[in-house]
Amino acid sequence: MKNSAKVKALINELEALQQNLHGKDFLLTWENSVDNLKAVMLVAEILQLLHLEKKPWRIFDYGLAISIFRDNSTRTRFSFASAVNGLGLALSELDEVKSQIAHGETVRETANMISFLTEVIGIRDDMYPGEGHTYMVEVADAVTEGFQNGVLAQRPSLVNLQCDLDHPTQSLSDLLKLKDYFGGWENLKGKKIAMSWAYSPSYGKPLSVPQGVINLMTRFGMDVVLAHPEGYDLLPETLETASGFARASGGSFSLTHSMEEAFHNADIVYPKSWAPMAVMQERTRLLRGGDKQGLKDLEQHCLAENARHIDWECDEARMQLTKNGNALYEHCLPADISEVSCKRGEVAKSVFERYRLHTYQEAGYKPFVIASMIFNSKVPNAAAKLKSFF
Amino acid sequence: MKNSAKVKALINELEALQQNLHGKDFLLTWENSVDNLKAVMLVAEILQLLHLEKKPWRIFDYGLAISIFRDNSTRTRFSFASAVNGLGLALSELDEVKSQIAHGETVRETANMISFLTEVIGIRDDMYPGEGHTYMVEVADAVTEGFQNGVLAQRPSLVNLQCDLDHPTQSLSDLLKLKDYFGGWENLKGKKIAMSWAYSPSYGKPLSVPQGVINLMTRFGMDVVLAHPEGYDLLPETLETASGFARASGGSFSLTHSMEEAFHNADIVYPKSWAPMAVMQERTRLLRGGDKQGLKDLEQHCLAENARHIDWECDEARMQLTKNGNALYEHCLPADISEVSCKRGEVAKSVFERYRLHTYQEAGYKPFVIASMIFNSKVPNAAAKLKSFF
Amino acid sequence: MKNSAKVKALINELEALQQNLHGKDFLLTWENSVDNLKAVMLVAEILQLLHLEKKPWRIFDYGLAISIFRDNSTRTRFSFASAVNGLGLALSELDEVKSQIAHGETVRETANMISFLTEVIGIRDDMYPGEGHTYMVEVADAVTEGFQNGVLAQRPSLVNLQCDLDHPTQSLSDLLKLKDYFGGWENLKGKKIAMSWAYSPSYGKPLSVPQGVINLMTRFGMDVVLAHPEGYDLLPETLETASGFARASGGSFSLTHSMEEAFHNADIVYPKSWAPMAVMQERTRLLRGGDKQGLKDLEQHCLAENARHIDWECDEARMQLTKNGNALYEHCLPADISEVSCKRGEVAKSVFERYRLHTYQEAGYKPFVIASMIFNSKVPNAAAKLKSFF
Repeated sequence: MKNSAKVKALINELEALQQNLHGKDFLLTWENSVDNLKAVMLVAEILQLLHLEKKPWRIFDYGLAISIFRDNSTRTRFSFASAVNGLGLALSELDEVKSQIAHGETVRETANMISFLTEVIGIRDDMYPGEGHTYMVEVADAVTEGFQNGVLAQRPSLVNLQCDLDHPTQSLSDLLKLKDYFGGWENLKGKKIAMSWAYSPSYGKPLSVPQGVINLMTRFGMDVVLAHPEGYDLLPETLETASGFARASGGSFSLTHSMEEAFHNADIVYPKSWAPMAVMQERTRLLRGGDKQGLKDLEQHCLAENARHIDWECDEARMQLTKNGNALYEHCLPADISEVSCKRGEVAKSVFERYRLHTYQEAGYKPFVIASMIFNSKVPNAAAKLKSFF
Repeated sequence: MKNSAKVKALINELEALQQNLHGKDFLLTWENSVDNLKAVMLVAEILQLLHLEKKPWRIFDYGLAISIFRDNSTRTRFSFASAVNGLGLALSELDEVKSQIAHGETVRETANMISFLTEVIGIRDDMYPGEGHTYMVEVADAVTEGFQNGVLAQRPSLVNLQCDLDHPTQSLSDLLKLKDYFGGWENLKGKKIAMSWAYSPSYGKPLSVPQGVINLMTRFGMDVVLAHPEGYDLLPETLETASGFARASGGSFSLTHSMEEAFHNADIVYPKSWAPMAVMQERTRLLRGGDKQGLKDLEQHCLAENARHIDWECDEARMQLTKNGNALYEHCLPADISEVSCKRGEVAKSVFERYRLHTYQEAGYKPFVIASMIFNSKVPNAAAKLKSFF
Repeated sequence: MKNSAKVKALINELEALQQNLHGKDFLLTWENSVDNLKAVMLVAEILQLLHLEKKPWRIFDYGLAISIFRDNSTRTRFSFASAVNGLGLALSELDEVKSQIAHGETVRETANMISFLTEVIGIRDDMYPGEGHTYMVEVADAVTEGFQNGVLAQRPSLVNLQCDLDHPTQSLSDLLKLKDYFGGWENLKGKKIAMSWAYSPSYGKPLSVPQGVINLMTRFGMDVVLAHPEGYDLLPETLETASGFARASGGSFSLTHSMEEAFHNADIVYPKSWAPMAVMQERTRLLRGGDKQGLKDLEQHCLAENARHIDWECDEARMQLTKNGNALYEHCLPADISEVSCKRGEVAKSVFERYRLHTYQEAGYKPFVIASMIFNSKVPNAAAKLKSFF
């Protein structure tokens, strides 16, 4: 194998970690130790290198992986499909329209009914504050009960493909891109990242990406600045945990209402729109109540509010404020690109185009991050298993 | 293998049977000998034990399994997906909306067009009396013609995933649960099972579950009592066959219009709602004619009629009437549980909760029953093949 | 292997060809040399023979095949599913409704986002003149860029599952049927094929089948006659290329407005409806503009125009005009069969029924043609690889 020295070095690093991912779900980065996070990323890098040389990394003879998407998705859907295929599982998507879930089934029943030969359940449920993570925990409890009572032969591992709180497969991909770009986790210490709100002509984008980024980058000694217009708050508890992580890692975490201040001298910028938490909560209330006029009014109000901040764009002038004028631009994609996907959006056309292939590479880690989460949950000795592949 | 003694004993039983499942479709239990039914159940048990220890039971190198769902489904959909995956096939669902079937294709053409590399076709078509089974036979004839005329390299085996007459993958799962619970088929002789109608706030549920249950349990010497309010008749020919089976097996079959009488001293109760046959037939007529007002009126009428029997609930008082007050509760799921999935339904909350995990285990046989039907149809010597797996 | 002599002879033929399919997409037959086309067909025949004896022809350990259907499909959908399954890939369908493509993603971004572990992309986009082929080229360029810039570990191969210009998997299946029926390509020289418009009560059928047929059969020395009522023109450039091919191969190509003239002494007839190019272009314009009334009017106008040519039916009288009254009838299916799928259609019931199983066999080549296109694109030495399978 061409890259075998590189792979071996990564396996050595992996062996040195104190991780406890085996048998666990992966729901939130902040439930995991830094060693757990590093283990997920190292195995992802190794699987990607194996894939480069088409060395198979199958660990299952058969079995299903189930995805439940409660929101639209392209890249996460295909990332999950790719990951489970590489591991040897067949994908089945649970389509809540075609199924009988609407007929009054409880979560715990459905979770068991779909899991008799299921090794993994990936869930995306990001639209309603207070809902997504709660739902994932309910599913996790249900399959635990089923496994412990002889209903299931194995307990499926859960992977959070985006919830109301966190988007771990995204933020770990973002971090892997930074690791590669800056040459290792050590080099991230003291690097400044601006996680900034940006204008979008759409509304209702979830909060999990910024919440995930501020809670992950602070674990690795980075100087994380969160920027947004007043009123576009994230869930308060996610700011508290980020502050704690920054203190523990020797990094820092601060909040500003100025995009310029956040960009000033930044090594990395992550300009991305989201809806204010209060709007998302109100939206959930209206949706539940079936209040269509209320939803229409809320959308109008919210778009008008957004429009007051149309200048929050990652343009060339703001990029000039960053370290040497060439901070790395990150985005979870798809970005709202001014004059490309909308008249005015999150990022200027020229800025996006300059970093476009970087964002593709950033996204390219996701299948391997997902595969790694499953791999680590299922394989008792990940390093030994990886060695067997080449 | 931990369970190898158990598996070997089951294989010995299998070898003693006079079955002729090879090369056959599985459409109705009553087309099959008792030995055929036992063979399906034994192989299902063996595959489940192999799965418990993750011993692969793949029999195909490649090939498709196609499912055609003309009604919603969660558990059957995932059971089929799991079964065919374990056997080595890739699942393709025929979505009649996305396909060109609406463009005037005949059944025989479509059946061949999707089958060039197809080993199995699973069909659910349970909503219209006189339709589902007929459709399955048409598909079967079409692929036979294609195979015999050099269109298809192999003849796909058909599996009935629920039709208007029977629901064999369900009833065989129900029976496997009974076999396990009471310790063998021999112990089922003389056991009383109450297959009873129960109230539901929904309408239009198919008849195939009760028809399947009374025609299967009577084959194994059980005392089968069918109970329903007047007017909620099943297809008359299914009562006749059930009577004949009871006579042949030394069991009994009777009909009552009292839920209490059915529950009295019962060893097993199966309370489950269904629509009167006459309503299902009228509904089919109206649907075909596109008579929306007629359908609305029929639904109102039928719900009002149902409401007259709201007391047909499997509650604690009725459970007290059963043998020692603790008959086994069975259900095909999802159940309409009073105060859980609806205000008032088929079963009281406390009764369902006490048997909930039993119903999950009952459902857990289904993937293996489906796999077994395919296995027996495709493998000339099932016992020999099973021995090769461990 | 029973057919090993036959397979070996085909492999010998394959080895004698000067083909350059490795690493290429398959978008249009007329971009390919005759040797390329023969290589696709020979490998398809070999894979079909291997399948007859259930000899696996897997070439991938893992990986995705993605299909993008922008028009309904049954046979092409299942052909693609079968082909990629046999080759060892898992199918993922890109459903543009469920994905975020509607949210302003560009083609080049999506193409990369779905391709991190993807080996093949099959696309059907046949409804809009000037669109389908252009879209495929855009996707091809996008994955080339991704592959060259370290975004993708492999460049997925593209397969045209029907575009606005050509339908190569169909026309090559049609040709394989002719090869089998007449006993070899050599025997096709001088054979007359009538590619004729036929009446259909529906409207808006794409042009790619007739365009594909006239541009493929002319490569093999056949006498190709295109027949249609005045106004039902194909894209003019496709007539030009067909004329050139006929000259080069020693065949001929001509156009007539008489179905009888085309059928006279024909060895093969291919009666099939399509919409006039001008209508398809107008329809595209109206669809883009969201002009619902305009679309309704166009449909009415077009159906009325069609109705003027209701006598363009492949009936028994016209079949009598063909060589010995028994020309081979071909169709891509589903056909509009008079008195079966519609009151009056493309073909008389008795004619279709006589050739029905032939049309099924014709369709039966498609999974293997698709598999062959992928096989030839991915395997550097196809003949050597094929030899390894038996």
